[in-house]
Amino acid sequence: MCSGDDQNCPQFRQHRQELLEDLDSERRNFLKSAFVTGGGAAAAWVTGNTLMSPASAQVRPGQPTYHYLPATADTVHWGYFSKLLKPQLEVDSGDYITIEALTHHANDDAERMIKGDPGAESVFAWTKEKKGVNRRGAGPIDGKLLGRGAGEGFGVHICTGPVYIRGAEPGDILEVRIIDVKPRPCANPSYPGKSFGSNAAAWWGFHYKELLTEPKPREVCTIYEIDTSGQRNWAQAVYNFRWTPQTDPFGVVHKTIDYPGVPVDHSTVKENHGILKNVRIPIRPHFGVMGVAPKEADFVDSIPPGYFGGNMDNWRVGKGATMYYPIAVAGGLFSIGDSHASQGDSELCGTAIECSLTGTFQLVLHKKNALISSLAELNYPLLETQDEWVVHGFSFANYLEELGPKAQQEIYEKSSIDLALKDAFRKMRRFLMTTKGLTEDEAISLISIAVDFGVTQVVDGNWGIHAIIKKSLFAGASV
Amino acid sequence: MCSGDDQNCPQFRQHRQELLEDLDSERRNFLKSAFVTGGGAAAAWVTGNTLMSPASAQVRPGQPTYHYLPATADTVHWGYFSKLLKPQLEVDSGDYITIEALTHHANDDAERMIKGDPGAESVFAWTKEKKGVNRRGAGPIDGKLLGRGAGEGFGVHICTGPVYIRGAEPGDILEVRIIDVKPRPCANPSYPGKSFGSNAAAWWGFHYKELLTEPKPREVCTIYEIDTSGQRNWAQAVYNFRWTPQTDPFGVVHKTIDYPGVPVDHSTVKENHGILKNVRIPIRPHFGVMGVAPKEADFVDSIPPGYFGGNMDNWRVGKGATMYYPIAVAGGLFSIGDSHASQGDSELCGTAIECSLTGTFQLVLHKKNALISSLAELNYPLLETQDEWVVHGFSFANYLEELGPKAQQEIYEKSSIDLALKDAFRKMRRFLMTTKGLTEDEAISLISIAVDFGVTQVVDGNWGIHAIIKKSLFAGASV
Repeated sequence: MCSGDDQNCPQFRQHRQELLEDLDSERRNFLKSAFVTGGGAAAAWVTGNTLMSPASAQVRPGQPTYHYLPATADTVHWGYFSKLLKPQLEVDSGDYITIEALTHHANDDAERMIKGDPGAESVFAWTKEKKGVNRRGAGPIDGKLLGRGAGEGFGVHICTGPVYIRGAEPGDILEVRIIDVKPRPCANPSYPGKSFGSNAAAWWGFHYKELLTEPKPREVCTIYEIDTSGQRNWAQAVYNFRWTPQTDPFGVVHKTIDYPGVPVDHSTVKENHGILKNVRIPIRPHFGVMGVAPKEADFVDSIPPGYFGGNMDNWRVGKGATMYYPIAVAGGLFSIGDSHASQGDSELCGTAIECSLTGTFQLVLHKKNALISSLAELNYPLLETQDEWVVHGFSFANYLEELGPKAQQEIYEKSSIDLALKDAFRKMRRFLMTTKGLTEDEAISLISIAVDFGVTQVVDGNWGIHAIIKKSLFAGASV
Repeated sequence: MCSGDDQNCPQFRQHRQELLEDLDSERRNFLKSAFVTGGGAAAAWVTGNTLMSPASAQVRPGQPTYHYLPATADTVHWGYFSKLLKPQLEVDSGDYITIEALTHHANDDAERMIKGDPGAESVFAWTKEKKGVNRRGAGPIDGKLLGRGAGEGFGVHICTGPVYIRGAEPGDILEVRIIDVKPRPCANPSYPGKSFGSNAAAWWGFHYKELLTEPKPREVCTIYEIDTSGQRNWAQAVYNFRWTPQTDPFGVVHKTIDYPGVPVDHSTVKENHGILKNVRIPIRPHFGVMGVAPKEADFVDSIPPGYFGGNMDNWRVGKGATMYYPIAVAGGLFSIGDSHASQGDSELCGTAIECSLTGTFQLVLHKKNALISSLAELNYPLLETQDEWVVHGFSFANYLEELGPKAQQEIYEKSSIDLALKDAFRKMRRFLMTTKGLTEDEAISLISIAVDFGVTQVVDGNWGIHAIIKKSLFAGASV
């Protein structure tokens, strides 16, 4: 069903109006007290807009504008964040954007995840002569360090963006409201009404050196399907295959999954169908990567998350959730990617159900000077859901700064979840002391008896622990 | 309200019948296929029983019997498990028992948690001459090692039991169904309708070396109250105080919380009232300690959990949940303790809301030879809730065996949550491969996309990570 973001829906106008009314009524008490928003984001938006073609925008002074940013070879940056990137779009605070995200695992099964889809085809295009997107990763562009390819796969996620938020400056906070998330329908007419994703149990997974059965080690891709109509809230496996050495169109042999977007030649792998029979995986569509550009380096590997968000891989970052990011560079430079149909806390084998999704967001800028709560000092990505606040701890809160010039290498050797737990504890304590005005003794007691710490991921270089506190704890305060 | 376990309820017979009918209808499909139960546990139990006085039992051949085990100085073992303990009760498979558990933190506020309560008074009795329960911990009985007291506080939990299950032998599985959990009402007439608990932010907490504010370091006890009538599902803080050196009745000065049950002299501490104002802590009544006796040593510190269960500190072990334990010694020797009104995942500051509770359990023995599923090989404590299976990983799955003769000391130096995650992963993989018949590749993919790993606790020597899988994933199997 259209949630106010599908222009092709016959009742689009009505749905859009309902969406906007919902948004108004959902503005949270927290924000009322904490923020002075920067530009009429909460104002009513009259219906009657004619939505423009993708990548263009209709500007209405003083009122939010709706934008559409498709994923194409021209609108994505693959495997890295960079403060040097030219924005794909400039928006005002309060604007809405629908952004397409493509999974970097689409070439695990191009028939199901690329074929017939112009955007995906443009991004994954790769012939003997040329790639649709050459740089894949923050590594050397000549690919001569390890010989894997441009960017060396030091970073793997296809990120759509960046989006420049007008007026955003370092020290401001970007609020990202996730209005809707939809799976990207398979464009191959052989699979009507389906979307597909791939789960790769790969060499960077937590399990890799712990395998029980032969052959050891091995990498396995499992292809999952989900129902695009939204009638089924679960995914199911289609088949799996063991990775075999794959030769890319430039002639490089990839013995393991060491470079993103390598096309898998299915004549070289054995598809095992009939796996995970009758197992229904609850879907949790979300964006593994979402965030702003870090300031510390020109090219930053997309894999390790940090204060700027990035590859947090928290499945709670889905429809209805709101993220807050500290802005580090002018314009913020917001991007999304690494879309997932589902993931468990820990993302243990290295990936989720990696599946292209399209999200609709509202971006709200909170100016540093207008922040009237202690959240003015927010220096990490904070998640708000309908019922919870979730702080994100990492082995290193800001690994780019803490680990110095070789940070982007060393982060892969130094992470532990013990460290991430310590960081999550410190952040939750600070959250309670600043936003709720508790003393340290009150905060520590409350954390022990009412905050749940979970393993976000142990596969992204900078490992993550999240801490969840229910909003209902404070419900008595307003009575 | 009486749930069929309160003899004083005027409608006890009717409630009891309802309870038993509920139990029958709730018998799980899993058990039908996995187990052949050992003794008519599921048989209907006619009404009309006259419940006997506490600690006695009415035996009805061939039908489950109801028992009551109060907590008194004679029925508890404090701070340790031991295969040498004389059973307090012998039961048959299928029997029901109501067992009282006392919090070892009751003397943090004796007025609210001990006064007027004969059971608690007998356990905590301590004069210049004598203690109600002398040994507190698995350490030397003469207390001369560190001079803290008998047992040295190497283990702190007041455990009620053990209960001997007739016919139980090593290799069998004990199923413990938690029928009901009730807070223990305060017996002091000054506090009608209330129960109380204490949260100690103590030296063994994860936060202790990370304090921000002075004085550093410090230990803080926070007293919480909950409503005994069950009308409010939340706890609230009453006051807190910083621990000051406390002199016990034997004259030993306890500068920190280094021995359980030391009476706090409230003339030496400053009570800060009005803390955590309007904060409502959702209650999650559960037993931090529950399990059977380990076989590896005669006296085992109650703090580190292990294959035998023990101090797992998982708040999901509450009403409606079922635990499965591998039996290590004849009779199993089941005990409970460390009752909590609420706790967050991680139990970060060292304790939960430590609060006396009374539980009603049904114990069902599954004989090794009668086990017809792969769970015959279960070698760790497994939790089943209405919707989930939860496996428990520890830094060391069986630290008593793995760490050798000095295991009980070394476990406190060697734990990490990274290790516990590895153990939880291995156990979940095995669970899926054995009970669900998945291949290793299927299991690993499913774990990454649908299993949530959380931090159970980081304060019990042998740290814990739990892994949760929803039963609904397999709902399609029976369609």
